[in-house]
Amino acid sequence: MVKKYAKGYRAEYQLTHMLAGMGYMVIRAPRSGRIGLPSPDIIAAKQGRLLVIECKSREEAFTVPQEQMQELREWEEKAGAVPYIGWKISREGWRFLRLKDVSENKGNVGKAFAGEKGISINEL
Amino acid sequence: MVKKYAKGYRAEYQLTHMLAGMGYMVIRAPRSGRIGLPSPDIIAAKQGRLLVIECKSREEAFTVPQEQMQELREWEEKAGAVPYIGWKISREGWRFLRLKDVSENKGNVGKAFAGEKGISINEL
Repeated sequence: MVKKYAKGYRAEYQLTHMLAGMGYMVIRAPRSGRIGLPSPDIIAAKQGRLLVIECKSREEAFTVPQEQMQELREWEEKAGAVPYIGWKISREGWRFLRLKDVSENKGNVGKAFAGEKGISINEL
Repeated sequence: MVKKYAKGYRAEYQLTHMLAGMGYMVIRAPRSGRIGLPSPDIIAAKQGRLLVIECKSREEAFTVPQEQMQELREWEEKAGAVPYIGWKISREGWRFLRLKDVSENKGNVGKAFAGEKGISINEL
């Protein structure tokens, strides 16, 4: 569990710095800072465009919990943010799935789905 | 020092929830989450408009450090955010100063200045 947490932390940390390197201003919202309000893992803004990203670093297919999708949806509707699920795939790198696509797939994300629907960091 | 920190924390917590109550999506960025990237105390977004706020809860006049103003300026220029210094004044409540005004005043904020240039939370 500790190892899993550390891996997730490293992945978020890496993505934060990749986005910063692309000219985004970035906030990584730590769990402890959430004080009961919905917050995605990473918030990035560039020239008025706001991205909210829930990060995953699983080895295999996963299902995004309903409450995380609802949280992203709230950021989309109220804040005007563009919501993504970011998946760091071992030996492949990051793929980003639009919330709409993941939601229509009932939260299920696997490698075929990510290959078909996913975009790269430069397409965010 | 611990007391001062707790007071600042309570003020940020209060402002976070006031903004959430007004329909903003809000992130309070804890110091520990900053990982070397510039980040204001509070980020709030509503319908595509992004606010970044550095919070103060001093009893008396204060000077905003140059590096905090620079940080807010970076959010303004790169992210397209609207930057404020938020001051919780005892027995009066919150006043918000535009970065431009504070910057032109060399970072100095006192009660007369806040009375003249400050706006209320509803004017953000």
